[in-house]
Amino acid sequence: MEKFTLVIHGGAGTILKKNMTPDKELAYNDKLKDALLAGYTILKEGGSSIRAVEASVRVMEDSPLFNAGKGSVFTNEGKNEMEASIMEGGSLAAGSVTMVTNVKNPISAAKAVMEKSSHVMMVAEGAVKFAKENDLDIVDPQYFYDAKRYQQWQDIKGSTDIRMDHLDESEDMAKTQINAEFSEPADKKFGTVGAVAIDKDGNIAAGTSTGGMTNKMYGRVGDSPIIGSGTYANNKTCGVSSTGHGEYFIRAVVAHDISAMMEYKGVSLQEAADEVILRKLPALGGSGGIISVDSEGDFALTFNTEGMYRGSIREDGEPNVAIYKD
Amino acid sequence: MEKFTLVIHGGAGTILKKNMTPDKELAYNDKLKDALLAGYTILKEGGSSIRAVEASVRVMEDSPLFNAGKGSVFTNEGKNEMEASIMEGGSLAAGSVTMVTNVKNPISAAKAVMEKSSHVMMVAEGAVKFAKENDLDIVDPQYFYDAKRYQQWQDIKGSTDIRMDHLDESEDMAKTQINAEFSEPADKKFGTVGAVAIDKDGNIAAGTSTGGMTNKMYGRVGDSPIIGSGTYANNKTCGVSSTGHGEYFIRAVVAHDISAMMEYKGVSLQEAADEVILRKLPALGGSGGIISVDSEGDFALTFNTEGMYRGSIREDGEPNVAIYKD
Repeated sequence: MEKFTLVIHGGAGTILKKNMTPDKELAYNDKLKDALLAGYTILKEGGSSIRAVEASVRVMEDSPLFNAGKGSVFTNEGKNEMEASIMEGGSLAAGSVTMVTNVKNPISAAKAVMEKSSHVMMVAEGAVKFAKENDLDIVDPQYFYDAKRYQQWQDIKGSTDIRMDHLDESEDMAKTQINAEFSEPADKKFGTVGAVAIDKDGNIAAGTSTGGMTNKMYGRVGDSPIIGSGTYANNKTCGVSSTGHGEYFIRAVVAHDISAMMEYKGVSLQEAADEVILRKLPALGGSGGIISVDSEGDFALTFNTEGMYRGSIREDGEPNVAIYKD
Repeated sequence: MEKFTLVIHGGAGTILKKNMTPDKELAYNDKLKDALLAGYTILKEGGSSIRAVEASVRVMEDSPLFNAGKGSVFTNEGKNEMEASIMEGGSLAAGSVTMVTNVKNPISAAKAVMEKSSHVMMVAEGAVKFAKENDLDIVDPQYFYDAKRYQQWQDIKGSTDIRMDHLDESEDMAKTQINAEFSEPADKKFGTVGAVAIDKDGNIAAGTSTGGMTNKMYGRVGDSPIIGSGTYANNKTCGVSSTGHGEYFIRAVVAHDISAMMEYKGVSLQEAADEVILRKLPALGGSGGIISVDSEGDFALTFNTEGMYRGSIREDGEPNVAIYKD
């Protein structure tokens, strides 16, 4: 039996056991297991890591529990603007979409851009048009409507409050990135989903998808569609999918930095992930986490927040999921 | 007299002396010198590298000679869609705009996003709205109209041809990135402008601006607005601005890769630039170049194409410009 590994995340942030009900915890754990098994089934049959990553991410996009696909949050114009990216580590091919409003599974649109266009990144109407031409599922924007998400948006609509995720306390994000008084809100969650896998052939793939931030300014793009920040994969080193306060992940080029540290400094995946997520990123003021798999099939699930919805599965087929800090 | 350095580029590609007239060559050299002197004046007075980079890029954006700002090429919908990014190496603050159609100087919009918002990247209408709110010059799209550019677009309108720059032969870019038969067109130019500087205080900044590709598919985003690919700056290592076939620069995370190689491997800027631009990028199939300045004020102007419009100036005030391979 050849080795393979799949890891996933459903967002990081101030996820505390005291705020969770047993039912809710069960619902998250079950859905994370579903996502793992969707990718596992493909990898077990010898399928590619890129297909496994897409399959796992789609399960989370289709669930209203996560801020991606169905369950995406509302912008300050009352829209759901989603973004996603995917990359394969052998060819270094990549695809990305941002500001899409009616594509059911943004991760599949990103994959189509990678496989069927000469471009890497497509935006807004152009990305939607491309998705349509490639027979992806287009849904009425009502599909993404979720009563709870809508209420969260209504609660802060018209203010300059921006919430990093659906469960947060009110936060003031209307500061600038170089304002010395800027500080991270105490209670926050980052709504993103992602998957990283290595298949039996040793090919690594990574993918990330998000619904953005509640009440975000129209036109803001986070790190999820950015190759090098939200997603990166390279068979020589590792694959990475990020979740966190996107602006910091862009400025720190988080996903590529972990890969580059392995490539040029010769450190292990865990050492590189710890350095970037537990030291460099907090020094800049950023919080969040990453999931990552290296070329040996070892993985790192590293975050500097209270929790991260996460899971892993290997060739034995046993899904492991977790929410809080160990 | 304290040290400082400023370097600029106005695009790379198949720029051959045999295709150039003396008048045209003079016009390019004069405009490159203007751009250098605009930044030099600021640096000489002790001004910041971020202001110098903005000033130099604005001179090139305001000239129809370069594919950025006035002089931008037409998309397949007959629009000018511009993108730009800027980053400062001390704070690692960054700003970026993409798909803007009526902002006179996209580099200044990117700078405003960096300095006056909590976001890094803003797109389309949202970016334009933000630029307006911050009193940037908004112009009628007619401003960007250039008879020559328009004719180039008319010549290939309706076809799937995409031209990398204004002076190219017809090219077929309608292949996919992982299509084995995909090959770079023999004759191409990449229309981008950029500047990188280190000021008297040792702060590095980098900025990039582009008008995109002629007849590009609506919604395509290149590497120019991508932090880590088109632009990156870090006082510990270097600042980089890229010009080339954007998709490859995104997949290779070019700007951050050069910085990371210096940081983790301890090589010089020139060694890192040579490795990425002369070896890693061509191995992937990508062509183009970069300009870069390190924390000592040394610089690298490295490209794997026939030519790159480029220039450098240091504290002595003598502008050096060049177009072709040495």
